[in-house]
Amino acid sequence: MAERMGFRVKADALRDFCKRVFERLGVPAKDARVAADVLVSADLRGMDSHGVARLRRYVNGLRRGVMKPRPEVKVVRETSVTALLDGDAGLGQVVGVRGMKLAIEKALQRGIGLVAVRNSNHYGIAGYYAMMALEYDLIGISMTNAAPLVVPTFGREAMLGTNPISVAVPTGSERPFVLDMATSVVPRGKLEVYARQGREMPLGWAVDEEGLPTTDPRRVLDNVAWRHGGGLLPLGGAGEELGGHKGYGLSLLVDILCGVLSGAAYGPLTYTGPTPNLGHLFGALRVDLFRPLEGFKADMDDLIRRLSASAKAEGQDRIYIHGEKEFEEAERRQREGIPLPPGIVNSLREIGEELGIRFDAFVKSSRSLSELEGGHNAH
Amino acid sequence: MAERMGFRVKADALRDFCKRVFERLGVPAKDARVAADVLVSADLRGMDSHGVARLRRYVNGLRRGVMKPRPEVKVVRETSVTALLDGDAGLGQVVGVRGMKLAIEKALQRGIGLVAVRNSNHYGIAGYYAMMALEYDLIGISMTNAAPLVVPTFGREAMLGTNPISVAVPTGSERPFVLDMATSVVPRGKLEVYARQGREMPLGWAVDEEGLPTTDPRRVLDNVAWRHGGGLLPLGGAGEELGGHKGYGLSLLVDILCGVLSGAAYGPLTYTGPTPNLGHLFGALRVDLFRPLEGFKADMDDLIRRLSASAKAEGQDRIYIHGEKEFEEAERRQREGIPLPPGIVNSLREIGEELGIRFDAFVKSSRSLSELEGGHNAH
Repeated sequence: MAERMGFRVKADALRDFCKRVFERLGVPAKDARVAADVLVSADLRGMDSHGVARLRRYVNGLRRGVMKPRPEVKVVRETSVTALLDGDAGLGQVVGVRGMKLAIEKALQRGIGLVAVRNSNHYGIAGYYAMMALEYDLIGISMTNAAPLVVPTFGREAMLGTNPISVAVPTGSERPFVLDMATSVVPRGKLEVYARQGREMPLGWAVDEEGLPTTDPRRVLDNVAWRHGGGLLPLGGAGEELGGHKGYGLSLLVDILCGVLSGAAYGPLTYTGPTPNLGHLFGALRVDLFRPLEGFKADMDDLIRRLSASAKAEGQDRIYIHGEKEFEEAERRQREGIPLPPGIVNSLREIGEELGIRFDAFVKSSRSLSELEGGHNAH
Repeated sequence: MAERMGFRVKADALRDFCKRVFERLGVPAKDARVAADVLVSADLRGMDSHGVARLRRYVNGLRRGVMKPRPEVKVVRETSVTALLDGDAGLGQVVGVRGMKLAIEKALQRGIGLVAVRNSNHYGIAGYYAMMALEYDLIGISMTNAAPLVVPTFGREAMLGTNPISVAVPTGSERPFVLDMATSVVPRGKLEVYARQGREMPLGWAVDEEGLPTTDPRRVLDNVAWRHGGGLLPLGGAGEELGGHKGYGLSLLVDILCGVLSGAAYGPLTYTGPTPNLGHLFGALRVDLFRPLEGFKADMDDLIRRLSASAKAEGQDRIYIHGEKEFEEAERRQREGIPLPPGIVNSLREIGEELGIRFDAFVKSSRSLSELEGGHNAH
């Protein structure tokens, strides 16, 4: 039944399609554009698990009322350098961009902006928001809590999210530093890829329902879906020998700064109320509070060059800076189009049909693909 | 030659001894007390590698002029929420406490305080400074760059420090959350313990001069000392499979925020000038900018209790919250004294003799120990 053909689709076409989908579901044009842009940015950057592959989630969320198409996002508390935003269960991308913009405004005026957000939804890639700061030569920070998928060290119950942290730092002639990392060893999407391919995953990514390391991705995904126990491991893996308690600590820290600080849901309580009630934290910081921007940028370039040029491990020929792979992938995909495997194409077609939008009309100029596995997940 | 007897020493006695040592080296009484307190706090908390075991380093640093006993610490730039401090090559503990106090003052007045520090020295445990915020019910942040010991992912040259991050968060009736973690899998001190015991270390902690994983701690320590290549691995280990690029990213982030942002030395450039020129970053944040403190604390307690009570992995009987082990150890050691193995006792005696201070006079009431291995390293 499933069509076996994938496509390589231009980013603009994909963005227009997603925007139309959001609009049909009642999202105002401006917000629909924002949500579509965050999604397609993930695809452009090669973070496929956070791109249009998730459009179905948002469609369902909007239909079920878990995500409001026209939220009344409100500033609940505010100082010259901080704010608390209530997202009114809007799309996470719309609420997130609003929050990060506010942080940037405050940073431009007062040097620092820190905005906590409650009552939001899944906001896509954390890096999108952190990178918004780069345009203004600010350091940008973005983090969010998420559905419980990660077990604490020595535990076997998923109590925390993959809770990503992103920080973007401006540079001179080198590409910006963009850290964008889940605080788990890998995101759920990575297990899904292995499960689809019927492969065993490496030991150290996840534990089974007894809390013991396993190489069976399907078992972990099923256990998590049915809340049978087990889940992803925090960065550093199982136990403390390789630092698993550190990844657990980072995940918990993000939950505190996003969930507890904003008054959103936290830990295992996200997605248990009528809406997910996720929390985010956005920050922006002016470099020239501390030193002139040009000197800072020159040193960033120098540090990046020293790292890239440093001696390689046996068998390796390149050392990467964070964000570098994604910038290169985005340039390639901007030029050549975004590869969409058959499963995703079918899902987008279906969504289109349900809403009276012809997916193929949007991508008609795109060429078909034979080889489609290979997009990588940065999270 | 070496005396085979260790001691269990009262924290107060040890603090007084260290204070006297610093004073004899020209440090004013008030600063000597600060430096001694940071050192002994590490011993109390069970982070032995960062305690009086390092007194020799500071003694040598002060004698050689790498650390100034009477620095002129200056505020170089300042806004109502930020400051840049120049540490004038003072003791890292003295400069650090000054920086964190300034961040706290600003947070109490304006909600946020962020203080970058350049031209400093090794400041001991990052957690000491973050925890200073707890007294004021603030969230505290502390990080520092350090001597290059960590290889970037796919590299074999130590380019970054173990660059720790600490965040302390106030709670209600539960103990505070205190994350205090090196961004490497383990700190150098852990390799030293294994080398002393002639044990192999687990694969995944460090790489040899070719950048390949090794279980030989002595080889790595020698390589690092002679700059022959190799070093500690970032959190997540070698390569990208278990997320080593994330630990590398966190270490680099700390270097950017501490070294580059403040205008201190960074990456492999620390410890290459006439003084180490390390950089730190201190932050303090008022919770009630976002929500009333009592509600925040109640949720912190609830989150902590849920994590502690959640199901344990097969074979495990306890899930820890960050800082919990150290608080328990500090209570025990406050009561029972700090265990000092014979090597450390000898080193302290020697330092005392060089400066005309009788170590044994300070610890005369302490009882001797037969079993002394067992202090754990939290970094």
